[in-house]
Amino acid sequence: MIQRWMRAKEGESYFRAKDKTRVPPTPPPLRRRPVLPLFTKAKNHGRKTRFSGDSSPLHPSPSQQKTLPSLQNPRPSAMKSSFILLFVFSTIAVAHQTLDPLVLPRPLILEYPSGDDQIFQTPISNVGRDEEVHLRCASWRFAGEANNLAPWKTVPADCGAYVKDYMTGKAYRFDLEMVADEAAAYARSISLVGDGMDAWVFDVDETLLSNLPYYADHGYGLEVFNSHEFDKWVDKAMAPAIQSSLKLYEEILRLGFKIFLLTGRSEGQKIVTVENLKKVGFQDWEKLILRGVNDHGKLATTYKSEKRSEITAEGYRILGNSGDQWSDLLGSSTGNRSFKLPNPMYYIL
Amino acid sequence: MIQRWMRAKEGESYFRAKDKTRVPPTPPPLRRRPVLPLFTKAKNHGRKTRFSGDSSPLHPSPSQQKTLPSLQNPRPSAMKSSFILLFVFSTIAVAHQTLDPLVLPRPLILEYPSGDDQIFQTPISNVGRDEEVHLRCASWRFAGEANNLAPWKTVPADCGAYVKDYMTGKAYRFDLEMVADEAAAYARSISLVGDGMDAWVFDVDETLLSNLPYYADHGYGLEVFNSHEFDKWVDKAMAPAIQSSLKLYEEILRLGFKIFLLTGRSEGQKIVTVENLKKVGFQDWEKLILRGVNDHGKLATTYKSEKRSEITAEGYRILGNSGDQWSDLLGSSTGNRSFKLPNPMYYIL
Repeated sequence: MIQRWMRAKEGESYFRAKDKTRVPPTPPPLRRRPVLPLFTKAKNHGRKTRFSGDSSPLHPSPSQQKTLPSLQNPRPSAMKSSFILLFVFSTIAVAHQTLDPLVLPRPLILEYPSGDDQIFQTPISNVGRDEEVHLRCASWRFAGEANNLAPWKTVPADCGAYVKDYMTGKAYRFDLEMVADEAAAYARSISLVGDGMDAWVFDVDETLLSNLPYYADHGYGLEVFNSHEFDKWVDKAMAPAIQSSLKLYEEILRLGFKIFLLTGRSEGQKIVTVENLKKVGFQDWEKLILRGVNDHGKLATTYKSEKRSEITAEGYRILGNSGDQWSDLLGSSTGNRSFKLPNPMYYIL
Repeated sequence: MIQRWMRAKEGESYFRAKDKTRVPPTPPPLRRRPVLPLFTKAKNHGRKTRFSGDSSPLHPSPSQQKTLPSLQNPRPSAMKSSFILLFVFSTIAVAHQTLDPLVLPRPLILEYPSGDDQIFQTPISNVGRDEEVHLRCASWRFAGEANNLAPWKTVPADCGAYVKDYMTGKAYRFDLEMVADEAAAYARSISLVGDGMDAWVFDVDETLLSNLPYYADHGYGLEVFNSHEFDKWVDKAMAPAIQSSLKLYEEILRLGFKIFLLTGRSEGQKIVTVENLKKVGFQDWEKLILRGVNDHGKLATTYKSEKRSEITAEGYRILGNSGDQWSDLLGSSTGNRSFKLPNPMYYIL
């Protein structure tokens, strides 16, 4: 079983990032497998766009292909003045909008050679295999929460039981509560300007609403995501509230924040989403932002960055940002502090 | 015991971030406690500068006091073109250097009102307290690894046993191996330019070298950090290698990366640091960067950002960055992907 665990990645599609920033703009040579598209049209039309593992070639956009301007040889004096306290207290580094597409990274995606992840695994004895599988799966979960893992499509096969136990036991609830506690304490510590422009952004799925009943029927992440099935679940408007998030939400409202709900669900699901949210206790928000027709096919990080920046462009100050995916929290206009809720069931790019 | 855990933060100094970006540049009103200095001179002269909990007033630098230019009302069309694929595949959002100090955030630090973190804790029954303490401590650790926690000075009192068990058992080693595996797989997936400018940055303490023997004598993070004692340990040059990091290190070298060691240790500890590194197997590196006289008192995030930017200014491409602290990984010139090694024993700002 351990050997299977150690090779779990072999039979799965583990996709890795390859950012060729500052590397000459020729397409990178591939290693065994074709490069994957970044801009696959979202199949999961009515939801957060997941990473799609299609194997058609990547075609970077023209802006991406441009050589980046040299940040490599700025004058030291100019640099020195600019380094003071960059992003120190943003929980996630705040990506300041430079309004210059030339300084954007040009990420590429490719699949690693099979079995390339195994060499550092310490040989596991035959004794205590279950314990070791548990520990390996815990390491996998922590690596994901710290954003060390490359994008993945399903939970590692041998971690199915671990993830199910985690999600259905106390650990997940405690983790959620800890994040909500930290967020609430932070929110209370802020002296709001009080002009109605103090904002907090919440993701919806696995941040305010729990889709655990759905994932219980789909292996808690062991199955490859099926957008058609998931949309049928969404349309039922039956997702329960994450209780710690609901308490945080009410506290954030009480403190005077304007709340923005920013979800990867599509505009077509607006009515059921509102119905679901209100039914389980989320009553007030400034704006519910869903993917419009122009947003489909965008990476979640891109879509959410754009929408957050539209919020700040209206004059709102995003002081807090809560989401279960790193794609909720990275990018631009991320706000002064971000809070990563746990989610070992799926990864959205 | 649980009640003590729930109030663990009360008796400790839990410092929180307050970023007043885009808020008028008046000093923020305090809540009960004085604002803390950002630029306290490092007492722990020979090491990573830790967060110093002095209670003297904060004096933001002039550049910090300036009102930030408005990113709130850029033209939508200009914004749209610039949002494409921001930071998508950087594990940590890459903070692109804008060379404009006006767009820097102005973080402030203050201490939360006592006991402000408790309200969302679910009441804990008398049954199964040990299990619940364990789970709460696991949640605390998870929150730290995901960078959800505000800066902290010591491990929560009730989590001392948990952290000791974690550090001395298999879990820590497995977590380290998982991160090294991911980093190695990523490194192998990159097609290096091969001009000698492909770079990887490693932190030293708790990234390449383990100070576990020291922390075993100091409560695994339960004691407030004592720089004098720690420096005596450093001078012994007896820190063992983190084995998974050593394997990764050798793989990175074999692949042709230039390695930069970027440590919060001071220049005065260069000789013992080199001795220690070489003794345990780290043989080759391009440059070992330590805190010079001008770097003391800087936040680790600032210091490391500056030094990484000097590296890129020399033309190197930082493709990977490994560290156990978020301050190793946030800021500017963070590289194409970052890898956060676990460390529940201390937090460095």
